[in-house]
Amino acid sequence: MKIITLSQSDIKKVLELDKVIEGVKKAYIQKSEGRTAVWPSIEYHFEEEKAAMDIRSGYVMGEKLHGAKMLNNFPLNTEKGIPSFSGLLLIFDSKTGLPLGVMDASYITSMRTGAAAALGIKALARKDSKNLLLVGAGRQAFYMLAATLLAMPQIENVRILDPLSYDNACNFTDQIVSRLADELKIKVRDSISFSPADDLPGVLSDTDAVITITRATSPIIKKEWVKAGTHFSCIGADMAGKEEIDPDLFREARVFADDIKQCISFGEMEIPCKMGIVTKESVTGELGEVLSGKKQGRISDDGITIFDATGLALLDIVTGKIAIDLALKKGLGTVVEI
Amino acid sequence: MKIITLSQSDIKKVLELDKVIEGVKKAYIQKSEGRTAVWPSIEYHFEEEKAAMDIRSGYVMGEKLHGAKMLNNFPLNTEKGIPSFSGLLLIFDSKTGLPLGVMDASYITSMRTGAAAALGIKALARKDSKNLLLVGAGRQAFYMLAATLLAMPQIENVRILDPLSYDNACNFTDQIVSRLADELKIKVRDSISFSPADDLPGVLSDTDAVITITRATSPIIKKEWVKAGTHFSCIGADMAGKEEIDPDLFREARVFADDIKQCISFGEMEIPCKMGIVTKESVTGELGEVLSGKKQGRISDDGITIFDATGLALLDIVTGKIAIDLALKKGLGTVVEI
Repeated sequence: MKIITLSQSDIKKVLELDKVIEGVKKAYIQKSEGRTAVWPSIEYHFEEEKAAMDIRSGYVMGEKLHGAKMLNNFPLNTEKGIPSFSGLLLIFDSKTGLPLGVMDASYITSMRTGAAAALGIKALARKDSKNLLLVGAGRQAFYMLAATLLAMPQIENVRILDPLSYDNACNFTDQIVSRLADELKIKVRDSISFSPADDLPGVLSDTDAVITITRATSPIIKKEWVKAGTHFSCIGADMAGKEEIDPDLFREARVFADDIKQCISFGEMEIPCKMGIVTKESVTGELGEVLSGKKQGRISDDGITIFDATGLALLDIVTGKIAIDLALKKGLGTVVEI
Repeated sequence: MKIITLSQSDIKKVLELDKVIEGVKKAYIQKSEGRTAVWPSIEYHFEEEKAAMDIRSGYVMGEKLHGAKMLNNFPLNTEKGIPSFSGLLLIFDSKTGLPLGVMDASYITSMRTGAAAALGIKALARKDSKNLLLVGAGRQAFYMLAATLLAMPQIENVRILDPLSYDNACNFTDQIVSRLADELKIKVRDSISFSPADDLPGVLSDTDAVITITRATSPIIKKEWVKAGTHFSCIGADMAGKEEIDPDLFREARVFADDIKQCISFGEMEIPCKMGIVTKESVTGELGEVLSGKKQGRISDDGITIFDATGLALLDIVTGKIAIDLALKKGLGTVVEI
């Protein structure tokens, strides 16, 4: 039998972020309709290599697709000049169980995670949100910002804060307009301003929506700095022990998860749960329920909303299938006998 | 970066069963030395399709390899003329996390499972074992038998019993010598006899070693039929609810697992455990501990020994790496950019 293999370069050629946002939205909605299965995630730490790997897998019933993704994060690779973040995504046809394709998983992960952060903002932030704060200026931050600009054309000011390095935030800011054009063919309006920030309390005082995408293991953002009506898309905390925002923010917020079980187990709400601040019952719902209209997202202009995203293979599978279909249409990728 | 993809046909060209037996033995021994990690297995049943899939994954520290295997079993495919059993195996370099290869998983699964059954017999059956009984004459049975003949040259009589169909056992028996020669290049001595069987109590009365490889969900073999000194390699029960031999056989047997946790959870000993006949403490050990000399296998000629094998990704990873190395040497497989 034959399968298609897609390299990162193939995927970059075919995958457009607006299509990924649509696909991710569809996956979340199917989840809210009980038409998906999220299988248990597996995580392992390689002590000697100071590295980690995780396996996410699941079934998107409506699309009749299932699959698994193995991601490896080996930060010491950077010293050796090889990629630190790599992995493979497998997609199977759930009508026959036959494999459809194998592809680089790292780029798809970045794109679908960006889409998730943006959908959280679109569904839960105030419609008049103008000021976006990006906390974290690493590899993933670029995709979060790009997707949010597509999903929220009303954004006027983007502030970038890197808790580890102001220089990093400056570099990120300097390059953002040209990177959006070059890498994602996104041309931003001249009226949108991008600026680095280093005064977190100051910048939070007029921020409408925040994306946190750091490796933090203790809160960076304190509750008293946050203005009424702020939305948070918390993306960085995707393994046990990671935490980016003040647990107290969960007390009065409307809280949404990508998957309640995963978020309680290893998302931003893991530690608030262990502290007794969040319970399974106190979580308002899952993002898919808001996207499908089953649950109301924001109910007032001055409330806090939080979207905790831990990452679902469902999003990778739907996104990967979009890439396969486009690659087949354009004659990209390599078809191999398996 | 580049990875190699191997088709089933590539793997068949390079993988020799004696090398697989060596590799599987090495993996079991590394497990007994605490140099492996077996990650939780994932299983899912597709109700509408009457199908199942499972994901096994793990880390072979000594070889610096980790990986995952997704297998799909869609029996209704047969009606459509497409393979019912398919899957992919991914292998990664654990020094860098980079992917090494992707390959068909079904043939490797058959080969390494055959090797496991044979190693169970070699380690635990009486050294003077001459009469082998194969219970089950399906797709996998062939590999069990082939590996056992390689590992146990003292076998003289092979009886094949298919609890569902005597005709099936006859067909299997008729073809076995030519299949061994054609498919695995194994030439069997003329003195070895192969015969179909239908009288299970009768044939068990002079059987030394038994391999069970059926889909049974209730015991096929009763304790009172079993002669003293018999060994069982129980391979078929690899999902919750499957069971092939009388739970009472576990009462006085020396019992070995491929992985104690997995066997208690979904192996042949799952139901005896639920009945209280087997406990974690009553299991004598793992096969790797016998192969590495840490534990004694058989201690008397008239005792019953049982090897419960649920299947470990460790075996697939080691076997898959052997296939990659041989394919690279022989210029087989397809190297693709990923």
